[in-house]
Amino acid sequence: MDSIKVFAPATVANVACGFDVMGFALQHIGDELIINKTDQPGLNISEIHGSDSLSKNSEENVVTVSAQALLDALEEKPSFGFEFELTKKVKPGSGLGSSASSSAAAVFGINELLGNPFTKKELVPFAMEGERLASGIPHADNVAPSLLGGFVLIRSYSPLDVVELQYPEDLVATVVHPQIEIKTADAKKMLRKQIELKDAITQWGNIGGLVSGLARADYELISRSLHDVIAEPIRGMLIPSFKEAKEEAINAGALGCSISGSGPSVFSLSRGERTARKVATKFETLFKSIGLESYVHVSPINTKGSEVLT
Amino acid sequence: MDSIKVFAPATVANVACGFDVMGFALQHIGDELIINKTDQPGLNISEIHGSDSLSKNSEENVVTVSAQALLDALEEKPSFGFEFELTKKVKPGSGLGSSASSSAAAVFGINELLGNPFTKKELVPFAMEGERLASGIPHADNVAPSLLGGFVLIRSYSPLDVVELQYPEDLVATVVHPQIEIKTADAKKMLRKQIELKDAITQWGNIGGLVSGLARADYELISRSLHDVIAEPIRGMLIPSFKEAKEEAINAGALGCSISGSGPSVFSLSRGERTARKVATKFETLFKSIGLESYVHVSPINTKGSEVLT
Repeated sequence: MDSIKVFAPATVANVACGFDVMGFALQHIGDELIINKTDQPGLNISEIHGSDSLSKNSEENVVTVSAQALLDALEEKPSFGFEFELTKKVKPGSGLGSSASSSAAAVFGINELLGNPFTKKELVPFAMEGERLASGIPHADNVAPSLLGGFVLIRSYSPLDVVELQYPEDLVATVVHPQIEIKTADAKKMLRKQIELKDAITQWGNIGGLVSGLARADYELISRSLHDVIAEPIRGMLIPSFKEAKEEAINAGALGCSISGSGPSVFSLSRGERTARKVATKFETLFKSIGLESYVHVSPINTKGSEVLT
Repeated sequence: MDSIKVFAPATVANVACGFDVMGFALQHIGDELIINKTDQPGLNISEIHGSDSLSKNSEENVVTVSAQALLDALEEKPSFGFEFELTKKVKPGSGLGSSASSSAAAVFGINELLGNPFTKKELVPFAMEGERLASGIPHADNVAPSLLGGFVLIRSYSPLDVVELQYPEDLVATVVHPQIEIKTADAKKMLRKQIELKDAITQWGNIGGLVSGLARADYELISRSLHDVIAEPIRGMLIPSFKEAKEEAINAGALGCSISGSGPSVFSLSRGERTARKVATKFETLFKSIGLESYVHVSPINTKGSEVLT
């Protein structure tokens, strides 16, 4: 195989109470990457569609940086190189794991072309190098679900321990991306390095509740647990009408609503597509009413993660 | 029914990563309480066996204080009163939920004598009033498992949300109570009111992992998740040879080992009774070697919680 076309999905990280440790993958929305083998070793980006702001320099793009991390881990280096044609369908700065989709696609595609020397889970640390480039921090809560699909818990970063959680089938996400940009690095800076113990206790009660609720398909428990007292109170201030959006989602029947990653996208989770679509309409109407363009996407949890397109 | 004899089990709170939000119940070890109806209204403690330090004054004993909280919640007050004969088999200051056992027994027993106006879960807030008396803080991570049995998560304190977690059957606890006393209030004071965000993230990764591991009987995940970076590093210093005890337990095959409640008791969890007994021997030998008397108890998770004795 000399060429491959792959897809890596957009993702929602944090998932309210799971700050820095949880994420899930979306369907349909994600980055596409065509990878061609080249005669000479080396990594080269030929085209980037869908974004003007990303560099083609191999040391400045997450695609080549994460691909290089994979190649560095191989004992026998390939005698050939790789050329990448990236189609961005997740907007940078959306809070939907844009850089993670590109990184996941790169390491997943190269691994396929090399005959799968690594499992998908083993690819996570390579894709994390793309995140290090993008935000300064090699976080895994976007790249892990983008590779593996599903609902993922990063139990530990040192050593890295990625847990694929159980979750019910009819959980449907509504994400809205209001057209303003928040840089992950800026959003991280606003958070305090120390937090109140009582807030931490609230947060770990909720994460225990969310994981338990997901495991036994207890929607009421999921709903009661989807709260974030750490990042949302601070980051919510950066998103126009965030409070109203959350209120509208809950009133429309969503189980919960919070910020996707570091924003500005907002996500909600609902039981079943009908409610999720109702929430989508509420989001659209709200952001229109304040004169802010927004894109809304309704999606069940993506169970596949990164995949080969034919 | 004019008289009843009830049992409420000892409990292990915190369970490593679940500081203030998790607890499980033990078998065989717990407080016994005989409650007799009296002609006149009022609450009266006639006898306390097994402890010299507890007051019989109805405003100073957790039995009568939690019983009073239950009576206060009744719309129609009973025309009779209650007399209590308490047999303490959980030592005060052991870290095994001594006050919680007494409180749970009191509210469970009175509820039975009144024809069960409340469910067991509804009894939790009354028993928490006993905890408020004992330690200044109405925590629920001992009283909830003592009443309900099993593995319990306090998802939220405000409003109170008690979640009965799924867990595998062949999980066996080994608890050792070295004969020194630590007051819960003192142990709480040593903890900082602010913690590092990075430590909080580590902790909620672990609690997510523990809840997931318990739900799907993934013993390796349970084992990897049984870590506490918040309370154990501070409270461990109060327990002689704690580090060595933990090391011995892990070496003997335990899934994990940490402090029970605020100590000084230490607990470990193992898969199966054989390993749990091996750990028990290690604990006994270790504390003997430093000249400290200790009591060791091996117990599967108590599935019943508070119960009527016949």
